[in-house]
Amino acid sequence: TINEERLFRMLSKSSETGAIPENGLRRLALSDKDQEMRNIFKEWCNEAGLTLRVDDLGNMYASREGKKDLPPVVLGSHLDTQPAGGRFDGVLGVLLALEVIHTLNDNGIETERPLEIVNFTNEEGARFEPPMLGSGGIAGVFDQDYVYSRKDADGFRFLEELERIGYKGEKENRLGDFHSFLELHIEQGPILEDENKQIGVVEGVQGINWLEVTITGEADHAGPTPMHLRKDALMAAAEIMNQLEKEITTTDVTVTVGKISVSPNSVNCVPGEAHFTVDIRSANDDLRKEAFEGTMNTIRRVSQNRDVGVEMTELWETEKIDFDRSITEVIENSATELGYSSKRMLSGAGHDAKYVNNLGPTAMIFVPSVNGKSHVPSELTLDQDIVSGANTLYHTVLTLSNE
Amino acid sequence: TINEERLFRMLSKSSETGAIPENGLRRLALSDKDQEMRNIFKEWCNEAGLTLRVDDLGNMYASREGKKDLPPVVLGSHLDTQPAGGRFDGVLGVLLALEVIHTLNDNGIETERPLEIVNFTNEEGARFEPPMLGSGGIAGVFDQDYVYSRKDADGFRFLEELERIGYKGEKENRLGDFHSFLELHIEQGPILEDENKQIGVVEGVQGINWLEVTITGEADHAGPTPMHLRKDALMAAAEIMNQLEKEITTTDVTVTVGKISVSPNSVNCVPGEAHFTVDIRSANDDLRKEAFEGTMNTIRRVSQNRDVGVEMTELWETEKIDFDRSITEVIENSATELGYSSKRMLSGAGHDAKYVNNLGPTAMIFVPSVNGKSHVPSELTLDQDIVSGANTLYHTVLTLSNE
Ligand SMILES: NC(=O)NCCC(=O)O
Ligand SMILES: NC(=O)NCCC(=O)O
Repeated sequence: TINEERLFRMLSKSSETGAIPENGLRRLALSDKDQEMRNIFKEWCNEAGLTLRVDDLGNMYASREGKKDLPPVVLGSHLDTQPAGGRFDGVLGVLLALEVIHTLNDNGIETERPLEIVNFTNEEGARFEPPMLGSGGIAGVFDQDYVYSRKDADGFRFLEELERIGYKGEKENRLGDFHSFLELHIEQGPILEDENKQIGVVEGVQGINWLEVTITGEADHAGPTPMHLRKDALMAAAEIMNQLEKEITTTDVTVTVGKISVSPNSVNCVPGEAHFTVDIRSANDDLRKEAFEGTMNTIRRVSQNRDVGVEMTELWETEKIDFDRSITEVIENSATELGYSSKRMLSGAGHDAKYVNNLGPTAMIFVPSVNGKSHVPSELTLDQDIVSGANTLYHTVLTLSNE
Repeated sequence: TINEERLFRMLSKSSETGAIPENGLRRLALSDKDQEMRNIFKEWCNEAGLTLRVDDLGNMYASREGKKDLPPVVLGSHLDTQPAGGRFDGVLGVLLALEVIHTLNDNGIETERPLEIVNFTNEEGARFEPPMLGSGGIAGVFDQDYVYSRKDADGFRFLEELERIGYKGEKENRLGDFHSFLELHIEQGPILEDENKQIGVVEGVQGINWLEVTITGEADHAGPTPMHLRKDALMAAAEIMNQLEKEITTTDVTVTVGKISVSPNSVNCVPGEAHFTVDIRSANDDLRKEAFEGTMNTIRRVSQNRDVGVEMTELWETEKIDFDRSITEVIENSATELGYSSKRMLSGAGHDAKYVNNLGPTAMIFVPSVNGKSHVPSELTLDQDIVSGANTLYHTVLTLSNE
């Protein structure tokens, strides 16, 4: 089993790097804090005897040789966070992988296959939309130009920021052939906690659509402009949001308006423009596509009725995917052998593993989230659940790397 | 009559100072551009032989002596604008007053009473909420500490910014006793244009409430969090906005949500907090108060139903006011003598004259707004309407200052 003291020392250090009130983390992709954490991770990889390389998208790979020159077992996740995120989202998958390496070193274990740890760039999609640009980039979902040209809210480009923090490497350093890819992650939902299970054996990830909407009405003075003469972009957006919420009548689909802004954004101005995003998800691709079409129809209908302009941009789409059955079995068996209760489940959130799955056999391990919370400072996984996760990861790696 | 060439030269210069695309102006109170325009105005006042003083709130007064040491006739408005405002909102009232002085000078006319021009600070309330801090400050509506402590969206304080641009003067320089106060302003509504009138004789200003609302739900991940387990602050705000719009069933009341923001404001985060403002107006104080109570009840009811927290802060309230009947008569007679068509009307927007009315006899002159537009770059008053306004102001001043 892994060394708890060392593991929690590493986690503490990460929790300090970009700390915000109430135990939160703000470590946006390619920011100064991301750079600081990457530097720390790099140093830790050196200490663990790993060889580091960085690819053209800023993804970091740390390798440990095997007895044979075979395709490696790869472990990884991300070190970036939401604007006001929690301590373990992504972080666990990277730092528990590092602890697995340390434990192998401690025990003088040489695996048959090489091992590799990855830290993927911009998983969250909070600074540069859409999410998973690093993993999607190497999986052929996004091409290099697209990734490089993504802009944050202040107009800074991905490429500029990648160069600024000194993490632009070479394209030939991208992930090569691999035997298997494993991502340990917090569940971010309430299921494991509700059912009192220690380990989630993740069989797949639900599909996602992201839509960006701009409503164009007419800005006006809030005083002398009668209600019936207005083209209020925000009132149109409000009606749309209300309709969207009402139209979701199944628990198998979610719809979220996470971002909104209006212009001119002054108390005594009728909003002339409203911008907002819609996030639509389902484990059932047909239901999701239906909800996506329905959403666009509702937006068009309300806009037409209110005689305001509308522009919609599809920001992102990913289909539902299934992970590799033989890896999920190894995970399940490892948990069982270690005496941990487990549950087969789907992921409600996107993950780097989703895109890596395009390239080769992949699966994920979930650990419970207290109250199902994530993307908030109060996100938490209990110490004993972190340890169960680390040991399950360790045993799964021992099996896979000696196959 | 006034000198058109000189007048339009002054107006052009103002239109350049803080110009934004599509003929708009961005000259927020106490910003660098406001400072630049104040400096220009100061120079012009010197050229017109006026004596300048500045009070503790940054209000600027330029005086011309009369034959007798009597209370002056005061003319004025404001030189600040909305974030993306038009060229003439406020500006006309200050620069047409200056042109009136020049015309008196040209004609060698000495009036019985002294004359004074005022440029009031932060009329718009766009940078520092609420509006009319300068005029409200001298009228005893806001005390000095309150005005000084107002903060803009970036946390800069009124006092800091007033000192920074060098326009903090002495409290004893505030407006003294006066014979009459006159504000010429653009209508900002569609009535004069619709009825084909040149001059609006403003008999009063409708009442206004401003409310600031914070809804506190729970931030969450947009993926793994089922709809029925959410406390989505933005969905609550959207329902509130929809309800408010539906509940206004009379054309005598307006309700506007002009500002909104959410947190964490990330595509894949359920909003945990939503902030928005409500602006409520009516010429009938009873109807307005009813609508204000109704608004607060709706906000409470929806929040309760959705089990989200709510905090409401009253940002501003002003009652409906009536202007001085003898001054409105002088305005109406001046317009008629000059051959201009005129209409008695109420103002839908707040104005410095509204607060100055607390201190002594006050009235306003409106000129038409093309398409009734204001608080947008497309705000426009036609040249001939500006000239009619200037001549009406001139003749009104001639009458009042010799009373
Ligand atoms: N795990 C996670 O929060 N990823 C971000 C992508 C998503 O929105 O699901
Ligand atoms: N005239 C004007 O737009 N004043 C701002 C105060 C208000 O909102 O009415």
